[in-house]
Amino acid sequence: MKFYYTPHTCALASHIAFEEVRADYETVRIDFATTQQRSADYLRINPKGRVPSLMTDRGILTETPAILAFIAQSWPAAKLAPLDDPFAFARVQAFNSYLCSTVHVAHAHRMRGYRWADDEAAITAMQRKAPQAVTECFVLIEREMFQGPWVMGDDYTICDPYLFTLAQWWEADGVDPARLPALHDHRTRMAERLAVQRAIAAELA
Amino acid sequence: MKFYYTPHTCALASHIAFEEVRADYETVRIDFATTQQRSADYLRINPKGRVPSLMTDRGILTETPAILAFIAQSWPAAKLAPLDDPFAFARVQAFNSYLCSTVHVAHAHRMRGYRWADDEAAITAMQRKAPQAVTECFVLIEREMFQGPWVMGDDYTICDPYLFTLAQWWEADGVDPARLPALHDHRTRMAERLAVQRAIAAELA
Repeated sequence: MKFYYTPHTCALASHIAFEEVRADYETVRIDFATTQQRSADYLRINPKGRVPSLMTDRGILTETPAILAFIAQSWPAAKLAPLDDPFAFARVQAFNSYLCSTVHVAHAHRMRGYRWADDEAAITAMQRKAPQAVTECFVLIEREMFQGPWVMGDDYTICDPYLFTLAQWWEADGVDPARLPALHDHRTRMAERLAVQRAIAAELA
Repeated sequence: MKFYYTPHTCALASHIAFEEVRADYETVRIDFATTQQRSADYLRINPKGRVPSLMTDRGILTETPAILAFIAQSWPAAKLAPLDDPFAFARVQAFNSYLCSTVHVAHAHRMRGYRWADDEAAITAMQRKAPQAVTECFVLIEREMFQGPWVMGDDYTICDPYLFTLAQWWEADGVDPARLPALHDHRTRMAERLAVQRAIAAELA
């Protein structure tokens, strides 16, 4: 398997999960600085021009929630999701779906407003609101979703590396960690895990 | 089970899937015109203040991709997803994740720009770009993702009602169906399915 990633993107979530299951995989770094993600070669791999992408012997997989669930199902012994309980699995999926469709999107308005408006003033207006929009998402997670000590309670799941990955962006997004004591503690404990340290070291090497 | 929905929203996707499996469920309409989704009663059910929500005897489920996979796993005889094949299941999930995190989000900039900017000019700029942004998503689906006759090929899956639901918004979003012949044909065939007709009739009753 080949895993295509860019440092400081949501690809880190899947990268951590691969390290959790000790998967046998190669990594390929895609350079956003040279817009390699829009190169003809990469668009043949992932026509969306985004990371992460996972090349398997059966074809390509994309989208963080899908790759995370694929890892959990492919390495069931690692117990990264409640695979035999459709309700509990759906709770895991709902959390990850909120991260991809609402939290990551709120963050993206700070860096990639050009996706949704052409004029500079509008893009600046989106950047201005991003700290508030992203903070509201994480406050909701802190108060209503996060169970502790892990996202889903006692069991570490594929929700944890994904939450940790988006929490990497707090300071740059203007989110005050002091408003998020439980999530801040989670981020600290995640950073101590061997799988997290291995994934980050590999991305920054 | 109680299914909370609002007509003309992405809740239709789950509503169709419930009709496909002939589930035993009640529906509760949430009125956006009176912002019932932000009422104290509804926020106790779903603190995100959005639809759909599914109340089960074990608690609440939210997020369309999670509810769709839950339906597929809870009624396996309906064969709405390749449940025993992690790679094929991940392809289904990747498609639905793209719909929630990119396609629905592009659409939302026409109606709900206030989520991401405060000033009127910026919100108008988002509305102006929405037809282009939404069209680009569906052109990518038409060219790169849609296999035909159903999204995933020969087998009807939980991708189909979700694609159909977002395709309901083409005309209002300024998307020209003539640019999307395969998806347009899909929408037409979906509209002929009994489950689709039952779900739409229930929502508009």
